[in-house]
Amino acid sequence: MASLEQEAIKIQHPYFPRDAPLAHYVPSKFNVGEAFMTLGSAIAVLMVTSAILIKRSSKQLSCKDKSIVVWMMVCAGIHIVLEGYFSFNHKNLAGMQTVMADLWREYSHSDSRYLTSDPFTVIMEGITAVFDGSFAVVTAYGVLVDSPIRYPAQLVTSLMQLYGNILYMGINYMEGFRYSNPHPYYFYGYFVLMNAIWIVIPIYLIVDAVKNLYRGMLIAQRATIVKKAN
Amino acid sequence: MASLEQEAIKIQHPYFPRDAPLAHYVPSKFNVGEAFMTLGSAIAVLMVTSAILIKRSSKQLSCKDKSIVVWMMVCAGIHIVLEGYFSFNHKNLAGMQTVMADLWREYSHSDSRYLTSDPFTVIMEGITAVFDGSFAVVTAYGVLVDSPIRYPAQLVTSLMQLYGNILYMGINYMEGFRYSNPHPYYFYGYFVLMNAIWIVIPIYLIVDAVKNLYRGMLIAQRATIVKKAN
Repeated sequence: MASLEQEAIKIQHPYFPRDAPLAHYVPSKFNVGEAFMTLGSAIAVLMVTSAILIKRSSKQLSCKDKSIVVWMMVCAGIHIVLEGYFSFNHKNLAGMQTVMADLWREYSHSDSRYLTSDPFTVIMEGITAVFDGSFAVVTAYGVLVDSPIRYPAQLVTSLMQLYGNILYMGINYMEGFRYSNPHPYYFYGYFVLMNAIWIVIPIYLIVDAVKNLYRGMLIAQRATIVKKAN
Repeated sequence: MASLEQEAIKIQHPYFPRDAPLAHYVPSKFNVGEAFMTLGSAIAVLMVTSAILIKRSSKQLSCKDKSIVVWMMVCAGIHIVLEGYFSFNHKNLAGMQTVMADLWREYSHSDSRYLTSDPFTVIMEGITAVFDGSFAVVTAYGVLVDSPIRYPAQLVTSLMQLYGNILYMGINYMEGFRYSNPHPYYFYGYFVLMNAIWIVIPIYLIVDAVKNLYRGMLIAQRATIVKKAN
């Protein structure tokens, strides 16, 4: 009898796998559209802030560098605020009534590990919030003031984003995407598309950083040789 | 009856957790001392090879740089050969009769995930074998020929080693070290000590790389400004 009751409790949620342990799940009281609007507005504020910082920068930035500032600022916001929120609240997230819990409950249709305190997800997100978030800020700052820290920070941020994301997607793949709702909206729209962004752009930025660091270190070597020769 | 038999099969291995699914486990036919001797000899060969390469290098290397060449060569050997072997054979490793399977069966006392095709472990080790291994070779090469790729490669190798290892240790920690034999020899000797090496040294090498890249990029910036001014 008890096991039947437990069974009934177990499936009182819309996530995959259907037997995911989510006894603490409470559906959102709000419309998911409102949560998306809030997220969109927050990203828009970050973009406008980036535009103001770019405008006020003493350096004349290329279109590429402007884009990197915007990208890193948006990443920093998502890593520190949204993923930081997850890291702090992962145990209770499934039952919380906040805009950010709504966003995580919605995203979790594509990956229920965000609601079950999955150890890999919790540690990876903690690292992402603290380190990827901080280094994204340093990269944006580095571009804006043309600091020598820019490319090292760009490499660190992007490499950590890429590594974390490949492990994240790879584990779900190896487990037969059992954490994902197979509906294309959730699987392709959320799981594949959203995460592909943090695969493609970091790869580009890693290559860009390594190229520029190589070139810079070559110039530094030659400059040091010339100095020694004089 | 069937479940009792299954139970009997389940516990026919010495690993933790005691119910780890290891029906394919076959004890080693050889003495573990021989496997350690082979590993030790292979590492000694890598060290001697490194010493020869250092000797033949046209550059006068500092003690620190010599140590980094040896470290990266040993890492490359372990990543590519030992961890590559795991990546290829993880499904059958528990029952294989080879020196490398012996080594993995021995290490697995401290972490049974190496014998159960744990998805995180398989992906992390695959990445380590291919990417950490290659970048370790590039770093050693970079030091030996004083190439501008040296510090970018050192940063990439060490950051990936550190990230992979923190996730690896962190997941076991979050799951109450359930994959580890609690005996101090296995837990502290294998799990803590061996992995601590790949936490401490990578942190040192990351800081070293970022410092040197910062300095180099600063020299490059100034050299470019001077060139533009002339």
